[in-house]
Amino acid sequence: MFYKKRLLAPGPTPVLEEALLISAKPMIHHRTEEFNAVMKDVFDKLKTVFVTKNPVLLFTSSGTGAMEAAVANLCRTDRPALVVRAGKFGERWGDITKAYGVPTDVIDVPWGQAVDPADVAKHLKQKPETTAVFTTLSETSTCVAHPIKELGEITSKTDTLLVVDGISGLGGQECRTDAWNVDVVVAGSQKALMIPPGLAFASVSEKALKKSKESNLPKFYLSFDKHHKNIAKDTTPYTPAVSLIFALQTALDRMVAEGMDAIFNRHKILGEAMRAGVKAMGLTVFSRRPVDVATAVDVPAGVDGGKLKKLFDTEYGITVAGGQDHIKGKIVRIAHMGYMDFFDSLAALAALGMGLNKLGHRVDIGAGAAAAIKRIEAA
Amino acid sequence: MFYKKRLLAPGPTPVLEEALLISAKPMIHHRTEEFNAVMKDVFDKLKTVFVTKNPVLLFTSSGTGAMEAAVANLCRTDRPALVVRAGKFGERWGDITKAYGVPTDVIDVPWGQAVDPADVAKHLKQKPETTAVFTTLSETSTCVAHPIKELGEITSKTDTLLVVDGISGLGGQECRTDAWNVDVVVAGSQKALMIPPGLAFASVSEKALKKSKESNLPKFYLSFDKHHKNIAKDTTPYTPAVSLIFALQTALDRMVAEGMDAIFNRHKILGEAMRAGVKAMGLTVFSRRPVDVATAVDVPAGVDGGKLKKLFDTEYGITVAGGQDHIKGKIVRIAHMGYMDFFDSLAALAALGMGLNKLGHRVDIGAGAAAAIKRIEAA
Repeated sequence: MFYKKRLLAPGPTPVLEEALLISAKPMIHHRTEEFNAVMKDVFDKLKTVFVTKNPVLLFTSSGTGAMEAAVANLCRTDRPALVVRAGKFGERWGDITKAYGVPTDVIDVPWGQAVDPADVAKHLKQKPETTAVFTTLSETSTCVAHPIKELGEITSKTDTLLVVDGISGLGGQECRTDAWNVDVVVAGSQKALMIPPGLAFASVSEKALKKSKESNLPKFYLSFDKHHKNIAKDTTPYTPAVSLIFALQTALDRMVAEGMDAIFNRHKILGEAMRAGVKAMGLTVFSRRPVDVATAVDVPAGVDGGKLKKLFDTEYGITVAGGQDHIKGKIVRIAHMGYMDFFDSLAALAALGMGLNKLGHRVDIGAGAAAAIKRIEAA
Repeated sequence: MFYKKRLLAPGPTPVLEEALLISAKPMIHHRTEEFNAVMKDVFDKLKTVFVTKNPVLLFTSSGTGAMEAAVANLCRTDRPALVVRAGKFGERWGDITKAYGVPTDVIDVPWGQAVDPADVAKHLKQKPETTAVFTTLSETSTCVAHPIKELGEITSKTDTLLVVDGISGLGGQECRTDAWNVDVVVAGSQKALMIPPGLAFASVSEKALKKSKESNLPKFYLSFDKHHKNIAKDTTPYTPAVSLIFALQTALDRMVAEGMDAIFNRHKILGEAMRAGVKAMGLTVFSRRPVDVATAVDVPAGVDGGKLKKLFDTEYGITVAGGQDHIKGKIVRIAHMGYMDFFDSLAALAALGMGLNKLGHRVDIGAGAAAAIKRIEAA
């Protein structure tokens, strides 16, 4: 059978069609009033999407560039940082702090679980000199959501910053930056923001801006200070990816029109529908505290997870992600964020069931579809 | 809930992405070797898609233009034509023959049914001077397939031509032009051929070409003779829609690579899956002899069909068609042709079920999904 290509991995995600179209418009110069007006609008709407009154810095880089910016601008070589490590992307924070020679403490959490805020509180009580806690909104590798609100309640009472990697979730997974006392939220363009990779963001609280003056680490392209000063002039310090910014403006327009409460709620329902469908097929969800933007499904015993992931692609045209590192072959990860809708999720559920049937693990796809649809109908 | 826009009506259908892209390439002049090479390739591949060794004429017009071309080039004011009228598009043949002053006989068939070949045989025995029988491959208004092969067996033994409107089906619905003795098959670009509206086609047998010399009707832009002579020069008599022809070439490349047997079989399976899904939800199919490229579902008693069709669009982002004329509000028509795949059909089935539930007619969507998937898994 012929199937269309469906990109349902946790990023890059399908690009909003209006954003694709506007990216194709002729290039304009970035040091012009015309482009300044675009940037002013973008900076303004980014605040809405990040649910913050603070400035949101914009980098032409992948999300990792903005993670590096957070470390390079906030940390010191003579003060410790705390990294919550519960998957691939928590690990990345530690890789970056170590690359910069920052003394790095780590709270290791088993993959599939979320950090216990009490462990963070205990650590900060012992090491109040900790510059920042680095953690993850949506740990893509395990599809786990850390309790960001609870972590913010802890750090807000200390001199320590809370820095959250929101790359694979911001704009879908609930993140109330100011209300939750998050000092820095980092994001990337290619996930719930519905545009191609190439732009990254960091919202920066006053507490973080103040702390950035004390950092002793080298930075130039990723300087918070330079980017922050340029926002006041409706521009960026270096040449930005102009066509991606056209796309971003279009995506932000749509998000602001829908409203962040509606967007968070929509993703919550999609997540619940997908998990209901998975469970109704007799399967289990890997994540103990699942995100709303993607679902990690345990590959049933006796099934080759690599083959299952491959079948999604070769048989059904659907790109999903498998497990990484020690859980390679043990899970498949299906995204439901940004420019994906319930019918995309239904296709993924059907493909999951058909793929398992093909590999000899019979499941009741009708029950899965019915359970997912029931959750949507109740919305 | 947010849903993407899904165009699942029986045309225009979703455009193949590669075809969209190539339509955006810079314009070239149509009287050049570069464009002649494109046209040569297009004329060649059209034969494969029409399953014919005969030339396929290309008009820059909607499908109706090619229907008019067939009448204007084949008929006479002093000889009768026979029109099979079993829906909107059968009626159109009669409207055209009458507009040209062609004496028109009609076989009226109740909507939802196919013509009985015996009726055509009987008529031609009584009126052997009939120039042509005008009928329809896929009568879009009722989603009925007429028995073209059987009609060809009848006309091939006579001096009468068989002219088939294949607009909403050719390239999806099985049509073996030469093997079935069809003299003229008319098609349009915006259905199973997967490109935008604007191009139309007519395959022309030797018998039809011969008969076209005898026609006494006026024609200029739509002249078979002019178009036929230009094919030998790898061109068209008048300026064609160049960007659509780029798109057409891309779509034909893909179709030729897949092969017409595979394409016909794929549509057959999609049609069977959709009908299985509809029936498993306790619903009925309107068409007695259903096409493979679209399904007409009876709107259950007590349900407002207009509201149901509207819900598809407003609630689920899906464009489907309703009933026309005296069956308005009584059916919904869901296409599964061209650049649509099974997951599009699954979305339509789910939306059909959710829409009916919303209108108070409870159906078992899980059973529908399961039945449709079962047919796909058996393929």
